[in-house]
Amino acid sequence: MASAGRQVRRLAAQLRPNLKIPAAQHAKRQWGSAQRAASSSTPRAALSRPSPLPLCCAAVALGIAALLTLQLTTADAARLDVAFLADKDAQKKREAGVSDDSPMRLRMEKFIKEQQLLIVKELEAVDGKRFRRDEWTRKNGGGGITCVLQDGNVFEKAGVGVSVVYGTLPKPAIQKMRADHKTLDPDVESLDFFAAGLSMVLHPKNPMAPTVHLNYRYFETANPDGSSQAWWFGGGSDLTPSYLFDEDAIHFHKTLKEACDSHDKTYYPRFKKWCDKYFYNKHRGECRGVGGIFFDDLDESERDQENTFAFIQDCLKSFIPGYLPILEKRKDMPFTVKEKEWQQIRRGKYVEFNLVHDRGTAFGLNTPGSRVESILMSLPLTASWKYMHEPEPRSREQRLVHVLRDPKEWV
Amino acid sequence: MASAGRQVRRLAAQLRPNLKIPAAQHAKRQWGSAQRAASSSTPRAALSRPSPLPLCCAAVALGIAALLTLQLTTADAARLDVAFLADKDAQKKREAGVSDDSPMRLRMEKFIKEQQLLIVKELEAVDGKRFRRDEWTRKNGGGGITCVLQDGNVFEKAGVGVSVVYGTLPKPAIQKMRADHKTLDPDVESLDFFAAGLSMVLHPKNPMAPTVHLNYRYFETANPDGSSQAWWFGGGSDLTPSYLFDEDAIHFHKTLKEACDSHDKTYYPRFKKWCDKYFYNKHRGECRGVGGIFFDDLDESERDQENTFAFIQDCLKSFIPGYLPILEKRKDMPFTVKEKEWQQIRRGKYVEFNLVHDRGTAFGLNTPGSRVESILMSLPLTASWKYMHEPEPRSREQRLVHVLRDPKEWV
Repeated sequence: MASAGRQVRRLAAQLRPNLKIPAAQHAKRQWGSAQRAASSSTPRAALSRPSPLPLCCAAVALGIAALLTLQLTTADAARLDVAFLADKDAQKKREAGVSDDSPMRLRMEKFIKEQQLLIVKELEAVDGKRFRRDEWTRKNGGGGITCVLQDGNVFEKAGVGVSVVYGTLPKPAIQKMRADHKTLDPDVESLDFFAAGLSMVLHPKNPMAPTVHLNYRYFETANPDGSSQAWWFGGGSDLTPSYLFDEDAIHFHKTLKEACDSHDKTYYPRFKKWCDKYFYNKHRGECRGVGGIFFDDLDESERDQENTFAFIQDCLKSFIPGYLPILEKRKDMPFTVKEKEWQQIRRGKYVEFNLVHDRGTAFGLNTPGSRVESILMSLPLTASWKYMHEPEPRSREQRLVHVLRDPKEWV
Repeated sequence: MASAGRQVRRLAAQLRPNLKIPAAQHAKRQWGSAQRAASSSTPRAALSRPSPLPLCCAAVALGIAALLTLQLTTADAARLDVAFLADKDAQKKREAGVSDDSPMRLRMEKFIKEQQLLIVKELEAVDGKRFRRDEWTRKNGGGGITCVLQDGNVFEKAGVGVSVVYGTLPKPAIQKMRADHKTLDPDVESLDFFAAGLSMVLHPKNPMAPTVHLNYRYFETANPDGSSQAWWFGGGSDLTPSYLFDEDAIHFHKTLKEACDSHDKTYYPRFKKWCDKYFYNKHRGECRGVGGIFFDDLDESERDQENTFAFIQDCLKSFIPGYLPILEKRKDMPFTVKEKEWQQIRRGKYVEFNLVHDRGTAFGLNTPGSRVESILMSLPLTASWKYMHEPEPRSREQRLVHVLRDPKEWV
């Protein structure tokens, strides 16, 4: 936590000059109660979250509140609304809990936190070691829980993270995001948003056991007045073996297909193709792995919010039955030094995809105040790059590369 | 070479539909002689370079040469001019050799190839193992020589590459490049260019011996009619220790300062600062290493071409005296397992910089037909990412991080 705390303080120092909060809006914002709420759930919050109070007092003392109000840019106003929304949500949770009538923001947050607990428990049972758990908060509201099991018995590195963000997107992030979501106005300087998601990457030690990735997220953008502007769900899950067992790929895809089919028969074929296209290491001319499903922009133009949330829930719940049986089968298989080396080379390509092509990683690294260690927990513990490494002709390694260059239909 | 050959063939297949060469221009292009020239110097060229002849013949046979001429887009025309320029240059070299009167393209190519030979020889003498040498050609002209020593006695991975490119920049690459070179028109769809450069990254095994990077390059852009539009030099060299020895940083910077000072006293302070700014891992809030020099856009607005070339030559020649004494001092120092682990973590940050921030890497990966293995030879043989890894307070590791966060003046 030492580095995260430092990072938050550094960021706070950078942002401080923009925090021009007029006295009139300050009262309405109920900072005190929000801070108590955050502190009660996360003891570290009070330490790492800079209090805006001295700044406001200083402004009032100087008698420049009115001037500051005039000086507020749209971006400043938007940033304040996001903090306001975070406070309102915290208050709702505190006073009434979260039910089916709560805003989707709170329902999604509750669901992914429950799932995180459940998944972490299952993975600990498989590995025998415990996850480290870091709870962190964001300056403008929100925060997350990052759970990492490193150098375990089964996992080289396993990260299961939940993050809840009330934030403001800078222009470059909006533009990157537009690739998935064409309705966003590319010309605005900044955009308020809410995002809640569960992200997971598991890198097992045994080269016969595949790496798996999962991410499900809910997004809302806000109008300058703070009201909800647009919402959408996105996510998916994909499997990245170093050694390909067809039966594993088939089982993984089958489980996802069942989750999809119970909601819409068109989902699996569409999202399977989308996954192959998205998790593509363009500069290598190969897919990252054997795919799974990927989608974004699931909004009201596709289906109503309630049904889409139900779909997301089923997808996420299908993870344990989709992956654990594969892991159980492979985690104790014998392997050679050469096979471990091949795994390390495949890990290198994984790093390349995540750092060069993944829009999620780019979005995270471009979001001011993001927690870098939580974003990059997806990177493997170790990776290797050998110049001009080529698998032997007709080897198992070669067969994997063939499939990565020409994705198969598994179910 | 197997994979490079495949890559070239795949690219050739992708480009083939665009290769609409009118018969009238075909004769002028002297493809036959250019191909002979390329084949004589690089026997593999004839195999990997697809012959355009059958396409032209087909076009003529169909009697659609005139139609094709009309259909040529500006981008097609430009691409043809670049191939033409490559042929002209190859012919000049063949017939008259390279002298001080030759175009800068040929002089720079000759110089960096001589330097590559010399540096490779020196590094082989230090390591005791030999470099692997791959010569490769590009479809539209140009090519390179990539020398890599992997898993040596001293070097984990050492890459020394020369590349000579006659190419066409797609829009995203132009836009990335504009960050350095504001005179480029961001609105054109493509731009012909020539680039020749020497790139080197050395990752020693011993964690006490620093990684070093060097790159010097010459750039020319071409008007649609093939005439030279603009030229500039760029480059630099920087040192990335895992364990900081002040005397090493001082020696490295001093050597660079001397090379700079003999040309312009303002160069070193300006280019030292530029280096600290450029090799900066923004998402980590730290510099990649202890810097050196970095510059770009050295064109006629700065100084004439002859003097700038002389400066580049002195910089490149200062590499051996700047780095080898450091390596000699450190390569056999004792080290612990913990120190090796710290080096692996620093290697991870090196990978992050190269894949997330380095414009050179992005430029390479965005250039159609680029040789990916030559671009990514800069990545270390092995790297590691540990979640939330923090050096001990007041340790040597901690001191390095302090310096990376707040770059020092070394001379």
